Amino acid sequence: MNPYTAPLTEMRFLLEHVFDASNTWSKYPAIAEAVDIDTAAAILDEADKVSRELIHPLNREGDEQGVQFIDGKVITPDGYRDVYAQYVEGGWVGLCGESNFGGMGMPKMLGVLVDEMSYSGCNAFTLYGSLTAGAALCIHAHASESLKDKFLPKLYSGEWAGAMDMTEPQAGSDLRNIRTKAVPQADGSHHITGSKIFITGGDHDLTENVIHLVLAKLPDTDGISLFLVPKYKVSDCGELAGSNGVTVGSIEHKMGLKGSSTCVMNYDNAQGFLVGRANRGLVCMFTMMNYERLAIGIQGLGSSQAAYQMAAEYAKERIQGKAAQGGSGNKQGDPIIVHGDVRRMLLNIRTLTDAGRALAVFTGKQLDVAKHATGEEQKKADRLVGLLTPVAKAFLTDRGLEATITAQQVFGGHGYIRETGIEQLVRDTRIAQIYEGTNGIQAIDFLGRKLIGDDLFALKELVTDIQQELDDMSHVESQYKNQLFGLINKFVEVIAEIKDKRHQQSALINACAVDSLDAFGYILYGYFWLKMTESAAVNMDKEFARAKQQLTHFYFEKLLTKANYHLSLLRTGDQSVMAIDESLF
Amino acid sequence: MNPYTAPLTEMRFLLEHVFDASNTWSKYPAIAEAVDIDTAAAILDEADKVSRELIHPLNREGDEQGVQFIDGKVITPDGYRDVYAQYVEGGWVGLCGESNFGGMGMPKMLGVLVDEMSYSGCNAFTLYGSLTAGAALCIHAHASESLKDKFLPKLYSGEWAGAMDMTEPQAGSDLRNIRTKAVPQADGSHHITGSKIFITGGDHDLTENVIHLVLAKLPDTDGISLFLVPKYKVSDCGELAGSNGVTVGSIEHKMGLKGSSTCVMNYDNAQGFLVGRANRGLVCMFTMMNYERLAIGIQGLGSSQAAYQMAAEYAKERIQGKAAQGGSGNKQGDPIIVHGDVRRMLLNIRTLTDAGRALAVFTGKQLDVAKHATGEEQKKADRLVGLLTPVAKAFLTDRGLEATITAQQVFGGHGYIRETGIEQLVRDTRIAQIYEGTNGIQAIDFLGRKLIGDDLFALKELVTDIQQELDDMSHVESQYKNQLFGLINKFVEVIAEIKDKRHQQSALINACAVDSLDAFGYILYGYFWLKMTESAAVNMDKEFARAKQQLTHFYFEKLLTKANYHLSLLRTGDQSVMAIDESLF
Repeated sequence: MNPYTAPLTEMRFLLEHVFDASNTWSKYPAIAEAVDIDTAAAILDEADKVSRELIHPLNREGDEQGVQFIDGKVITPDGYRDVYAQYVEGGWVGLCGESNFGGMGMPKMLGVLVDEMSYSGCNAFTLYGSLTAGAALCIHAHASESLKDKFLPKLYSGEWAGAMDMTEPQAGSDLRNIRTKAVPQADGSHHITGSKIFITGGDHDLTENVIHLVLAKLPDTDGISLFLVPKYKVSDCGELAGSNGVTVGSIEHKMGLKGSSTCVMNYDNAQGFLVGRANRGLVCMFTMMNYERLAIGIQGLGSSQAAYQMAAEYAKERIQGKAAQGGSGNKQGDPIIVHGDVRRMLLNIRTLTDAGRALAVFTGKQLDVAKHATGEEQKKADRLVGLLTPVAKAFLTDRGLEATITAQQVFGGHGYIRETGIEQLVRDTRIAQIYEGTNGIQAIDFLGRKLIGDDLFALKELVTDIQQELDDMSHVESQYKNQLFGLINKFVEVIAEIKDKRHQQSALINACAVDSLDAFGYILYGYFWLKMTESAAVNMDKEFARAKQQLTHFYFEKLLTKANYHLSLLRTGDQSVMAIDESLF
Repeated sequence: MNPYTAPLTEMRFLLEHVFDASNTWSKYPAIAEAVDIDTAAAILDEADKVSRELIHPLNREGDEQGVQFIDGKVITPDGYRDVYAQYVEGGWVGLCGESNFGGMGMPKMLGVLVDEMSYSGCNAFTLYGSLTAGAALCIHAHASESLKDKFLPKLYSGEWAGAMDMTEPQAGSDLRNIRTKAVPQADGSHHITGSKIFITGGDHDLTENVIHLVLAKLPDTDGISLFLVPKYKVSDCGELAGSNGVTVGSIEHKMGLKGSSTCVMNYDNAQGFLVGRANRGLVCMFTMMNYERLAIGIQGLGSSQAAYQMAAEYAKERIQGKAAQGGSGNKQGDPIIVHGDVRRMLLNIRTLTDAGRALAVFTGKQLDVAKHATGEEQKKADRLVGLLTPVAKAFLTDRGLEATITAQQVFGGHGYIRETGIEQLVRDTRIAQIYEGTNGIQAIDFLGRKLIGDDLFALKELVTDIQQELDDMSHVESQYKNQLFGLINKFVEVIAEIKDKRHQQSALINACAVDSLDAFGYILYGYFWLKMTESAAVNMDKEFARAKQQLTHFYFEKLLTKANYHLSLLRTGDQSVMAIDESLF
């Protein structure tokens, strides 16, 4: 099996041409100072090398060995510490971090591509840095200047790691019921006491300190507040200053992601510092959550790409059966890629992964605009980020699991053997549909808040832009445009119907949420395929452009039509879902 | 977590009412002598006990411990030997075996239900007995009388186990390339030399002998022959008579099914006995394969049922969030089963599993008729078995994986933790889509041979029967009948189109196979739902009948419509699948 190699041509094509990074970046001085398109290309090249030569080699053995919990300490698999040190040394943790606190200030539309490579290389390893970057983002957005000064440079440099501590046994998707307490102290800090579960990267041996962002309740309130709680106290001059009552109760034994620690964290009068306003912790945490949700979407994308490469390579090498259409004449048979069913599987993965990458870069671009633009342009991008985040999280991870399972099927019996590695991708990717808010929760956020709660405003803005863009395309067959127009209009219509009916059918949004997100996802990917086809015809060589046309053909014929199925379900409402008595389940 | 409990009411309902076991069995003296409906009910009760009290307790720990390979010996997990001994003692291995060789002679339509319970209890454990029964079936159908006398009683009694040895590293889906050699000996036996991989139950410590059915090539021929090769030689009086050159090279480390041994088997001049005619080994092996394919379908069904029970129980207990439609008023929240999205997931599993059980019993019934009837009745049942077998294998296992993954999603973060047990079901079930012929191979068999190769004859026979039956139903809404009629007619039409176009598009069958099987599967399940609803209205109490109506409503609204999507793909042909150059993958 060849090592993972990043799809650099695809990535540059998206960045340079499809989403026009140069013109976007030059509009915003903060980005233009940090990067131009050539620097971005050099960063991608370097990230490919890091993923291929450093990160990917950790993947298999880390799964076999797993994280260990010995004498209260969490030990990562062999090699993790060395590679993390080099990863940190390369500045990768702070890639998109704020430059005034030591980050590299890179735009997110570049960052998502680097993240993809890293997740393709090793899901488990990548989480440590990803959570650190997310924690830093949250601290930067909501913490006091003194907390920022004290913690951000260490987080961006990667010397310290970050973690988010939300879940408790009785409080998962519903955080109202958390019990962790925060008691105010005379010096303005708080004493945090309680237990958290499922804390990814809650502790490990990669960094000298772990900075926890912990949800807890102040006395006499049901509100939830956010606290920064370091594993080791930090003195005013930034030195470690002894234990802080933060201990690991145990680590979980999981289906996959075995190189990533998942901890039970105990807080015993640990010193914590309020981040943001009291009782507004969920709002602050959601800054981090939205970032993490996109990152987790990219976990799904990275796994899809890795799975595709493995399956395509195997299909080109494995000799079995003869081509129905003639074939090589080799008596032993032909490589299985000649078979229609194998091609169908590979093309399913390929077209969903390529479009998924477009979704990631598109969402990253909106994050950049939302951060750096002003006025209406900024607000519009912000609305679009809100609309796209649950889709990026859920649709990329659902397709991610499908991709790994489909790739495993291409391997036949060999796909079930641990040595081959593809089954690990299935196990590692599975969690991405669950954590950072299950995909059901994402869908309810999408349909309930981002579409209906918004009175379809952001949706209609996006639709207008897409329609305008489709009209302007001159290298795309009009039948595809019409097919997509039809679906988009039907989607808007059906969502408006749900909005009108939601008071009569109280479970309507909950019951229809997943289908609404799926319908939207397939439609959006159709838009990206046309956008890529158009851009390839204009900007790339003939072979590249032809491949995009052929992949668009496949996508429109075989996958986009799934949107019809999901749309048809949206019209059927919640009655058949809710009618059955609980006792009959 | 409560232990697994078999859905006995559902099972008896199918057997006694939906598929009218009494009248079927009374027609065939061989069955009528062995069993009546009351005995069958008692057997189901006993099988439930065995699955719940003996088999299921092996499941979790067997996964943690796995099969070990020490000093050339395969050691099953703790408890397997004891339970297997009790399982054998109960006569379960020979349940459907021939009574003149010590089997219990039970009909398959009962056997599938017992198999389901056992797979629900523990996938890995169940395979040992299932392969033994399959090997016995093949020996009974094709071996000489002396081989039958010598081996069948020991296999049915469970004293010896069976295994099927087909795959070699270079010969998986395509068996033409096997290299294992069989050299004729003066005494009429053969010396078998070669290596086989992926041999489920190839060796273990549960029985004193393992009887291998090995595919090999006779000298100077490309034909493939089947040989019975015991691990230990057997004397004329049936005693073990020393080693036979059969050794285990290694065992595989797999994604799941860790309590089931998957062996590399080496044959070094091992004594083997020809089964069936020379160079006709594949035909003989397919007798076993067809049996195993249904059995593996039932692995998917058993996992679905186990997953459903776990998820439904969790959803009724886990408090999280408040019901959109009001709820209990409990400040902590409501059980998650109040949420539309959770119900949607549970109902997806439930309606596919209940209909899947109907498919299993229906297929079992056709096997019984094909075995015991005569004349045209027998031939028709035989054709139907041919049509249904690939569907039962592929559709039940594809839905099985979906069911386990959906159930895992209901568990949220807890679903990813090994302790909970649901992630094991995902891992154990995954293989069922791959082995005994990948589901892609099943689909190609279905579309290429069973539909088009048969000129749609068996399909049209089935369709005529279904239409007749639908016409006669008086407790089923006509809108459902019409919806189903429409889909059935469209399916026949589309398949006829493929038949007409197949010479112009050489990859058409291969590229469309999976969608044809899926379309058929969803349509067939629609038929079973109406059949169950009708029968429940006539034969069962009001609450049971109402539940069936409500589940039918859900199935027809939310799942049957998937058939439309697959049918639409069938119309698009193979062009978009085949156009892309191999080098672009």
